[in-house]
Amino acid sequence: MAQDLAPWDNDFRAFIVRLRERILRVAGGVPGIHTVLPLQGCGHFITEAALRSLVPPKGRLLVPDTGAYANRMLRLAREAGRDAVALAIDANRPTDPAAVATALAADPGITHVGIVYSETGSGVIHDAPAIGAVARSAGRRVIVDAVSAFGALPLDLAAQPEIDAVVFTSNKCIEALPGVGFAVARLDSLEAMAGQAGSWSLDLHDIHVRSEGGSFRFTPPAQVLAAFDRALDFWEEEGREARLNRYVANSRVFYDGMLDLGLTPWLSRDAQGPIIVNVHAPTDPAWDLQGFVDALKRRGVLISNFYNTPTPTFRVGCIGAITPDDMAGAVAAMGAALEELGVARRENVRDEIRS
Amino acid sequence: MAQDLAPWDNDFRAFIVRLRERILRVAGGVPGIHTVLPLQGCGHFITEAALRSLVPPKGRLLVPDTGAYANRMLRLAREAGRDAVALAIDANRPTDPAAVATALAADPGITHVGIVYSETGSGVIHDAPAIGAVARSAGRRVIVDAVSAFGALPLDLAAQPEIDAVVFTSNKCIEALPGVGFAVARLDSLEAMAGQAGSWSLDLHDIHVRSEGGSFRFTPPAQVLAAFDRALDFWEEEGREARLNRYVANSRVFYDGMLDLGLTPWLSRDAQGPIIVNVHAPTDPAWDLQGFVDALKRRGVLISNFYNTPTPTFRVGCIGAITPDDMAGAVAAMGAALEELGVARRENVRDEIRS
Repeated sequence: MAQDLAPWDNDFRAFIVRLRERILRVAGGVPGIHTVLPLQGCGHFITEAALRSLVPPKGRLLVPDTGAYANRMLRLAREAGRDAVALAIDANRPTDPAAVATALAADPGITHVGIVYSETGSGVIHDAPAIGAVARSAGRRVIVDAVSAFGALPLDLAAQPEIDAVVFTSNKCIEALPGVGFAVARLDSLEAMAGQAGSWSLDLHDIHVRSEGGSFRFTPPAQVLAAFDRALDFWEEEGREARLNRYVANSRVFYDGMLDLGLTPWLSRDAQGPIIVNVHAPTDPAWDLQGFVDALKRRGVLISNFYNTPTPTFRVGCIGAITPDDMAGAVAAMGAALEELGVARRENVRDEIRS
Repeated sequence: MAQDLAPWDNDFRAFIVRLRERILRVAGGVPGIHTVLPLQGCGHFITEAALRSLVPPKGRLLVPDTGAYANRMLRLAREAGRDAVALAIDANRPTDPAAVATALAADPGITHVGIVYSETGSGVIHDAPAIGAVARSAGRRVIVDAVSAFGALPLDLAAQPEIDAVVFTSNKCIEALPGVGFAVARLDSLEAMAGQAGSWSLDLHDIHVRSEGGSFRFTPPAQVLAAFDRALDFWEEEGREARLNRYVANSRVFYDGMLDLGLTPWLSRDAQGPIIVNVHAPTDPAWDLQGFVDALKRRGVLISNFYNTPTPTFRVGCIGAITPDDMAGAVAAMGAALEELGVARRENVRDEIRS
């Protein structure tokens, strides 16, 4: 991060070319079919850019209502002037591809399906390949929000021609620092939609056109990109499956640890994904999210002081450069923090959940 | 830059509150009248956000055609669906406020004037306070692109109530690293336009609403922000006027140095601003911009390998943590680089320019 980089330097261009090639490989993309488009900023920006650049103004987007990030996609599309409809589902279970098939059959006006691969608002992994297959059969296009999935969950764009774009950011499962997002998109879809984004800043086709030879459209966050490239080194050394297995192990240690502490995870065990675990806030009046966060911080454990679920929870990421031992340490810290807050421990939750 | 920061941590919120207060002071803004709105990304993004969030869909933006960055503002506005018109001027001279007054009198439909304070496409400083005063008299609103001006050129929002927003980025005269932009905007204007941005990502009013207590809307580039805060320490230590004086001294050493090398600056001396100096590319067939940039780099001097002027130039920033001595060193490196390229030296340019 702490390098003095000249973003317009020829050496930096070669670096960007190589970085885009690396990302294309992570996505299972095909040179000549797909391209990697970087965008300064956060997950909202790259998601809006994909929606604007790939859903035509007269198209219609269907999004299974998986939770907070499905709602994000819907709102981004609607504020960009796109017609977007939610498909009601049980948000605490993986989306049933058959339900998507039914919705597509019922509404021929739907041109695109938006899928949140890993829904932070619940912790559920939605089967993007299976939902994509349904869309493919129905002749519809797909946009995948893989922000908290990319680099951990399987992705093979070569095998999913229905996907117009998959979007992600630097700071989730690639374990780098925030400040840049990427879309891996189909060139034919981008070309077909050229000039219809309705925003120069968020126009993926314009980024494509201006990416010749490693140019980065507009001033890039050079240090963030350098850190991302280094993080890809670690990713390649570990391997995607090993990384996913580590996250799975992290999430299991944490899930069981919550039960041992008398806390109730948001999801049943079989619906729990490996990326994020939401846990019901204790009903004890001594509970206070910020107090809990502060007490944890004093013990070297940092978690968010907000939640994305419909009712109060706390949320814990199982990703990043952490191991099951770290998760066990976090569980111990949480036990101590709850004790400090004076939150009474409920017994037999593990048995309730297991039953 | 290289700190492990938790962007949702309460300590980081206090940091953001303080950072916004510091920026408000730099802008001469008034608490309760103005607010500081951060946006992930680059100058294009914060400029588009200001245009979307402050020029109503049925408004009309007038932009004096000062060069590349005036054209940027026009394109950003038009692609966002706003009516935007250029005012033809001599782009190599500061905009005449009287010409703006005439244009405003001729077209009552113009609601906003866009001003590029420091135009990189020429190097001219346009008198934002004087042009603003004309707009104020005519009852119009103003948006200032101060990307390469903020922190060096005078700015006193308290004295310019016609300014709806001034926008800038982290990586110019504050001398920090790229990755975040800011708008300092009037609260009343933001409120009046609430819900009309047509883009959730680029909606300044939404940023305002969600900035309560130091929250940063969407994942912030935490490391870039930490670096920006440290850069503000240096800015406060130096003082705005001293910083501007340093840039003026840098630009003068460089301008004279170009004449001494037989090169012709893009602007006459009296129109040359202190931020960036564009220099006509030599007409010698041995000239090659990339070759020149590479030869300079070998000598420890980095410049851009593109230009923003209508005809070929090279461009040199006089900003950053550099002194007149550094500029003299850059001039010497350029002399050596031209010699290496075999570009013949023209004599008597200094006399031509001076005459």
